[in-house]
Parts: sequence; structure tokens; C-alpha cells
Amino acid sequence: MIIELAKNYGFCFGVKRAIKKAEQIKDAATIGPLIHNNEEISRLQKNFNVKTLENIQALSNEKKAIIRTHGITKQDLEELRKKDIEIFDATCPFVTKPQQICEQMSKEGYEVVIFGDENHPEVKGVKSYVSTKAYVVLDKKELQNIKLPNKIAVVSQTTKKPEHFMEIVNFLILKTKEVRVFNTICDATFKNQDAIKELSLKSDVMVVVGGKNSANTKQLFLIAKTNCEDSYLIETEEELKKEWFLDKKHCGISAGASTPDWIIQKVIAKIENFRIN
Amino acid sequence: MIIELAKNYGFCFGVKRAIKKAEQIKDAATIGPLIHNNEEISRLQKNFNVKTLENIQALSNEKKAIIRTHGITKQDLEELRKKDIEIFDATCPFVTKPQQICEQMSKEGYEVVIFGDENHPEVKGVKSYVSTKAYVVLDKKELQNIKLPNKIAVVSQTTKKPEHFMEIVNFLILKTKEVRVFNTICDATFKNQDAIKELSLKSDVMVVVGGKNSANTKQLFLIAKTNCEDSYLIETEEELKKEWFLDKKHCGISAGASTPDWIIQKVIAKIENFRIN
Repeated sequence: MIIELAKNYGFCFGVKRAIKKAEQIKDAATIGPLIHNNEEISRLQKNFNVKTLENIQALSNEKKAIIRTHGITKQDLEELRKKDIEIFDATCPFVTKPQQICEQMSKEGYEVVIFGDENHPEVKGVKSYVSTKAYVVLDKKELQNIKLPNKIAVVSQTTKKPEHFMEIVNFLILKTKEVRVFNTICDATFKNQDAIKELSLKSDVMVVVGGKNSANTKQLFLIAKTNCEDSYLIETEEELKKEWFLDKKHCGISAGASTPDWIIQKVIAKIENFRIN
Repeated sequence: MIIELAKNYGFCFGVKRAIKKAEQIKDAATIGPLIHNNEEISRLQKNFNVKTLENIQALSNEKKAIIRTHGITKQDLEELRKKDIEIFDATCPFVTKPQQICEQMSKEGYEVVIFGDENHPEVKGVKSYVSTKAYVVLDKKELQNIKLPNKIAVVSQTTKKPEHFMEIVNFLILKTKEVRVFNTICDATFKNQDAIKELSLKSDVMVVVGGKNSANTKQLFLIAKTNCEDSYLIETEEELKKEWFLDKKHCGISAGASTPDWIIQKVIAKIENFRIN
């Protein structure tokens, strides 16, 4: 049986970069969870003494602080800089970008529409860089009763879908004279989805590794299931069953955006150990 | 019988403004036809000695030049300024705007996409203000094989449909990092269309006045016909027939964007003279 990994799967560029940074720096405190994956956070704590703090108020006598992938607010960063602590920025560059855009657009007098979830740490951070007026919306309807200025800038939370972003943009174009659109959507999630689609079309068994509560993992599993009836969603290698692979010729594997590579490797090793064919 | 004019009909703001200017200035030469209506051009020639020249090369010893509603190219304007002639600008302000935007965006380093007809005088004029690179397109497909820069500005010919403009914008958003969108579409045409729709729904006879070859007039007639079976398209009052209005209670009237008001008034006068009811 051939075992084939999807062309894109698991951790995105920003998450990989942050973890590498945390491993290199060691003994640091991260402001908020570095990434959204508890097993990985535990591993970093155990092997590299990386401590997770709730917020900057929780800092006591730490020497090194790491800013997590989603970023923090401008105000928190300023507070942090006043403290006697070395700062390492692991904010994903795809998140730093909209922060910079918001700061610059505000300077140029634009009000800013942010397409995203108001309560998401990434969006809170990005919004904090707007010094004019910021509107955080998930739907164009939320803009309907707002008196918009003549010129407006628009950015998006990195994980949103382009077609939904367009809806907001198209609404704004009809409402105001100038719309300055910055496509800040990161295509990592969609690359994973495209790759699992391609792989599941040629596989006769598919294994998706990731949290059963993770939205992006469930999405991957749904795509796999559509193209390959024998698709399974597992969190660890312990859930694997030998009979899934009997008489199968091509096993495809993918993983959610919050699934560390070492879990995926354990899954592959166990499937190989079944010694099918 | 009630005779009711559509809420919006005939000449738009820019055309009205240009004609008023030509009447006030008198004895001037216009560079290109002032507006796209021969009867009105003849009237201006006859009553106000306004001469229509093909282009600036046709100028001889004229003292006053009027720039027509659609504008001219930047290069032609510069040539004109070198001549010993007084210049009056009747370019529609809705056309001056995209010209200024193109000039400014070029200064800021943006390449420019113009959504419009390459051969239309308005578009030729607007394009001439781009000093970087301009792409004139009617369909997003024309942009498919172009290597686009990271930042691009977009304007539209004033008479285009917003939904088609969006298609170009949405395509660009996926292809590049920053899209600066200027909605330069003028809603005069659509206001005439909305108004005739409303009026034709309550009328039992409709008269649309305008050129039988005029695209926007034909569009108005089609809308009228959809809602009111007894709709007629005429160029002058001479085509009116009394029997059209027998037993009718509500007569709606509208006119294409190139139909002068004095023709419409003659039509109304003649219908009133039929003394129906």
C-alpha cells in the first residue's frame, strides 16, 4: 500500500516559525498561547521551559517574552516595552502586515473596515493599530446604517474566505468614492483544502489527523469523505485500526492546521507497522 | 388623461452644464462634438454660432475653444494651451475626476486599470493622464495574462454598470496585494432607467423620446414595454398618433440621455393638443 501525505497539510508557515523561535529562545514567557494547540504548548513547556501567560499583567520577573502568532495590541506592546524584559516577536508576518496597513492608513486619514471576528486575538491586535475609526464586521449588513467617509481602507482577518471579503468590498464600492482594498487573506487553510481534495480523489482510504473540535480539521475531513468513502478522522495514532487498510492500495494522509508534525509522524509509523501488502 | 414625466429623464447634469456654457460663451469652436446629439449641435450652431471641429488640428483662427463633455487627452490640452486661444472647459466633472485620479495614482507609482471602451473619447482622455502603465479592459479575461504589480488603482468609464466593475475589481483583489478602487461610475443613466420603470408600472400608455439608434434610449423603451404594453419610441413629435391615447388614463413620458428638452416639450404640447378626455 502506498502512503502519501497531502502536498499541503498541518501547520502553516507562521506557526512553524513561532515554534522554531520558541525552541531557540527557551525559558521565555509567551503573552497568550503561542499557537492554538495544547499538546504542542505542553511540549514546549516541558522541553524548552516555555511558559504561557494569560496576558502582560501576569508577567512577574520573566527575562524573555515572546509575542504569539496572532499578535497583541499596540497598547500591550507599548506596556511590554516599558518593562525590563527582552521581547521576541513571533507574530505571523501575515498578521504584522494588516497591523502596519492599519497604522499607515490611519495616518493618511482613512477610516478602516476590518473583515473578521471582533473577539479574535488577531483582529483585536490589528484593530488596535487604527487611530482614526475602525469598523469590525463579519457581514456587509453591519455597515448598512453607518455613515461612511469618502475614503475607506479595508483589510481582512487572515483566515477568512476571499468570496466573503469581496461581498464587503463590493458593498463599500457602492457606498463611497474610494475603497483601498488590501487582500490580507492567507491562503494556507485553502492550500490544505485544495491538497486534500486532490489526494482524496486518488486514494481508497484517507486518514485526517486533528482535533475533533477543530473547525478547519472537520472541513478537511468533509472534503476527504466526499471523494473517498473510507475516510477517518483521528486525534492520535492510538485510534488507528488495522482493518481500515486491508485491501487498500493508496492511503492518503492530511492534518488540521493545529496538528503538530510529530503526531502526524507517529500516525504514519503506526500505519506502516500494520505491514499491509 | 394625466401626462406625467419620469422623475429622471433626458440630459444628465454634465450635458446640461456643457450646453449652458456653450450658449453663454457663444462664437466658440468645440473640440469634438460637444455632446452626442446632432439636433442640439445644429441648434447651438444656428443660435449661438458654436462651431464643431473634428480635433485641435482643425483649429485655424478661432478665438474661443470649448472642451466637450467627454474631455480630451492631456496631450491635446497641452497643444491647445500653446495656441493663442481662450479655453473653456466643459468636461463633465464626473469625467474630470477619473482624469485627476489617474494623474495622482501615477505619481504615487500605481499602474492603472480602466474599465471601459478603449475607443471612447472619454476613456482616451482618462487614459492619457496615466504616466505609469494603463490597462483598458472591458472584461477580466483581458487581465488574465498580464503580470500585475503589487499595487494597482482602478477607475471606470462613467457609463458602465457597477456589477461589471465589481467583476474586474474582484479579479484584481485575488491577483495583487493592494487594489485602490475609485468608483467613478455616474448613476444618471441608471436613474433614468429606475424612473421609467416606476412610471411605466402606473401608466397605460408610454412615450419614449430619443434616437432609434441610441443604446440608452432603446434600453429605456425596453423597460417601458415590459411594464406597459402600449409603449412607443419616437424621435420627434411628428410621429405621434392620436389613437394611441384614446381611452387612456395615464400617459408616461421619458427621454434618452441625448434628447434635448425642447424636443420633449414639443412632444408633450402635441399630446396635450389631442385633447383626450
